Amino acid sequence: MTHELDHGRMSAAQGSRIDAYIDRYAARAAGMVASEVRALFAVASRPEVVSLAGGMPYVTALPLDVVGELVADLVAKRGPVALQYGSGQGDPDLREQICEVMRMEGIEAGADDVVVTVGSQQALDLITRIFIDPGDVVLAEGPSYVGALGTFSAYQAKVVHVAMDDQGLIPESLAQTIYALQTAGSRIKFLYTIPTFQNPAGVTLNEVRRRQVLEICQRAGVLVVEDNPYGLLGFDGEPLRALRADDPEGVVYLGSFSKTLAPGFRVGWALAPHAVRDKLVLAMESAVLSHSTFTQLAVGQYLASQPWREQIKTFRELYRERRDALLNSLEVFMPAGCSWTRPAGGFFVWMTLPEGLDSKALLPRAVAERVAFVPGTGFYSDGGGAQHMRLSYCYPEPDRIREGVRRLAGVIEQELQLRDTFGTGTARWHAGIDTPGPDLA
Amino acid sequence: MTHELDHGRMSAAQGSRIDAYIDRYAARAAGMVASEVRALFAVASRPEVVSLAGGMPYVTALPLDVVGELVADLVAKRGPVALQYGSGQGDPDLREQICEVMRMEGIEAGADDVVVTVGSQQALDLITRIFIDPGDVVLAEGPSYVGALGTFSAYQAKVVHVAMDDQGLIPESLAQTIYALQTAGSRIKFLYTIPTFQNPAGVTLNEVRRRQVLEICQRAGVLVVEDNPYGLLGFDGEPLRALRADDPEGVVYLGSFSKTLAPGFRVGWALAPHAVRDKLVLAMESAVLSHSTFTQLAVGQYLASQPWREQIKTFRELYRERRDALLNSLEVFMPAGCSWTRPAGGFFVWMTLPEGLDSKALLPRAVAERVAFVPGTGFYSDGGGAQHMRLSYCYPEPDRIREGVRRLAGVIEQELQLRDTFGTGTARWHAGIDTPGPDLA
Repeated sequence: MTHELDHGRMSAAQGSRIDAYIDRYAARAAGMVASEVRALFAVASRPEVVSLAGGMPYVTALPLDVVGELVADLVAKRGPVALQYGSGQGDPDLREQICEVMRMEGIEAGADDVVVTVGSQQALDLITRIFIDPGDVVLAEGPSYVGALGTFSAYQAKVVHVAMDDQGLIPESLAQTIYALQTAGSRIKFLYTIPTFQNPAGVTLNEVRRRQVLEICQRAGVLVVEDNPYGLLGFDGEPLRALRADDPEGVVYLGSFSKTLAPGFRVGWALAPHAVRDKLVLAMESAVLSHSTFTQLAVGQYLASQPWREQIKTFRELYRERRDALLNSLEVFMPAGCSWTRPAGGFFVWMTLPEGLDSKALLPRAVAERVAFVPGTGFYSDGGGAQHMRLSYCYPEPDRIREGVRRLAGVIEQELQLRDTFGTGTARWHAGIDTPGPDLA
Repeated sequence: MTHELDHGRMSAAQGSRIDAYIDRYAARAAGMVASEVRALFAVASRPEVVSLAGGMPYVTALPLDVVGELVADLVAKRGPVALQYGSGQGDPDLREQICEVMRMEGIEAGADDVVVTVGSQQALDLITRIFIDPGDVVLAEGPSYVGALGTFSAYQAKVVHVAMDDQGLIPESLAQTIYALQTAGSRIKFLYTIPTFQNPAGVTLNEVRRRQVLEICQRAGVLVVEDNPYGLLGFDGEPLRALRADDPEGVVYLGSFSKTLAPGFRVGWALAPHAVRDKLVLAMESAVLSHSTFTQLAVGQYLASQPWREQIKTFRELYRERRDALLNSLEVFMPAGCSWTRPAGGFFVWMTLPEGLDSKALLPRAVAERVAFVPGTGFYSDGGGAQHMRLSYCYPEPDRIREGVRRLAGVIEQELQLRDTFGTGTARWHAGIDTPGPDLA
């Protein structure tokens, strides 16, 4: 009796969760899918778990007292402006300062061609919105940033991956892919690339290839969308020259203060050829009217009054130490048959598992052993990546990184024994795009 | 010779502005069109012009010293959280507080069904994104909010206006419109309505009609999107009961802190049936990953520590005084044949010009006489509204409002003389949706 009652309650509860609107969504809503591993990441955020999953910058390294004074000062001196609506294109002074930041990567641009966005994620969304009709092709590195793949999917783009190696995108593969697609009548709208300290692969497009990639795209009439959130976080020498620096009319450049200052302000930007910029501003106004004046002015005040180049240096040193901790402990702990990239900047290492192992199948076991990573399949839109995983070193402190790698190595060892005993590891999960939680940025 | 050179230079300059990407935009980009009157509004922002155009709240009435302390305190006490990425759905504490705010309008809801957005404009964008395929129908009051029409247009919706009078949307017209459209096979995705202190009309849906509108939409299976930025800014008595209060499964409610606190934080929200909420969170993550944690926590801190209900009362009294200044001076100065609405809250009065006058044609002359308004055509997607204009009383002080109305009356008088002498006023401009600048919110 009690049992029946409980059962009745459960059905009613489930009933109320049935989607009355299921037949009414737009076709594009089918492309918005929650990550299968999302529930696991909720567990992974517990303090006892070492998360090598998230892409959260280590904002604790900021001078918080200075930031506090600065925002108070902003309200005192410019309150009525900071609290009001702003322009759709973004604060003009901040756009000037953004041009100064981009100059470090060889970019010469005017503030008039910059649009401030809600993180560079929004720049991605708006660029996709103005260029992509359902079925249009976006080229992207394989693997590529999970948040970009989610956005392309939401606009019903067809993502075609282009092969990369430890020097970044392979120009011959790019040329062949473009040729094959255009011959087949596909409409390629742009190449989406993260040339520097790529997410998730951690590799960087070399200088010779940069010129080749630009030439190939120019010749084929393919716009380049250069996503560059990590460009100033290199561990060796001067910042690399951006693709945009050598092709102002063929490249839309996306930048962000999320990794060089703080993601909590959500200030990113797009630098675009003039006509594209016009469309971006209209799309921006239609999407959110305008970005927060408050956070824009806070970033502007920070750049104007603080030694921001020094702060970036602090971040670089911090992340280099963590990269070293990750690479060294991989060397020490990982079983034979594992290989990984060696990033010269940014946040991520891309690891390849021994033959027959599936990273998504490993994840629940890893979380049970108190370590988390992102399975490789999230970074492909074609089901690839099962043998890979992304390891982030940006957030945990070096000792925690070493402990996390030790735990992960144990899980992989066990899986290898399983494979060697039974011929295969745990069954593969269904592959697909994992819409990222924000902490996977 | 010099002339030829100059001509050559001009051509080169124009040439560099030719859009190399003109053939490559998505079909939806054609729906993103800049306002024809945008250039005039740039002029209208000069201090000598009385702007009755913008919908900017009077943030100077906020206790700026308190806000300054509050944001400094936020960084000091919760800096590493406030500066970090947040969840796509928004800060859980803020979502609880939002439920408390909505309780003032009779809404009982759980924080789990709230999604925090970049102003309620983004909530509108995301709702449109998940429901609208090209050609789908959105019902909206005629006139309706220009920013919503711009968003619907950007997603290639077909907007069908439903007639309203001084008691809001006319239920019979709504029922007839739905019947005619559904009989003709149109897919109506939702009714977009601003039931309380409507933008731009300044009218409010009465209580009897609220029930009727809900019943009509329930019967026809049409979702209601209730946009309610002004609901707490009524001049008489208690806040009205929201539509959502009486139909949790049939209404998506959009709210905002832009008018009750400050637009510069860009914090709005959607409250949606559970399944729709799931889709909204995915769309939010795909669009911007997450909203600014900093501004969300700042709003949360404000609500937790400040007498926000008292502050809303201050705003109400301030706007009532300005509403009175506008209505009284319209009475005093406007020539016979003009009529206007009498808002009981919010920011706007909707004025109807005498027969034969066109508000868009009047605007350049008005700006020359140092007064600005928004022509009525922007609030219709079908070319209607030429005989109307929106007058805002939210931003200028009462004396300025009176002076602005005096100037505007003079311009209308002149136009009437022209009409009576020549049979018609200035030629009509081409009508169409004017994508709003943010100051037209």
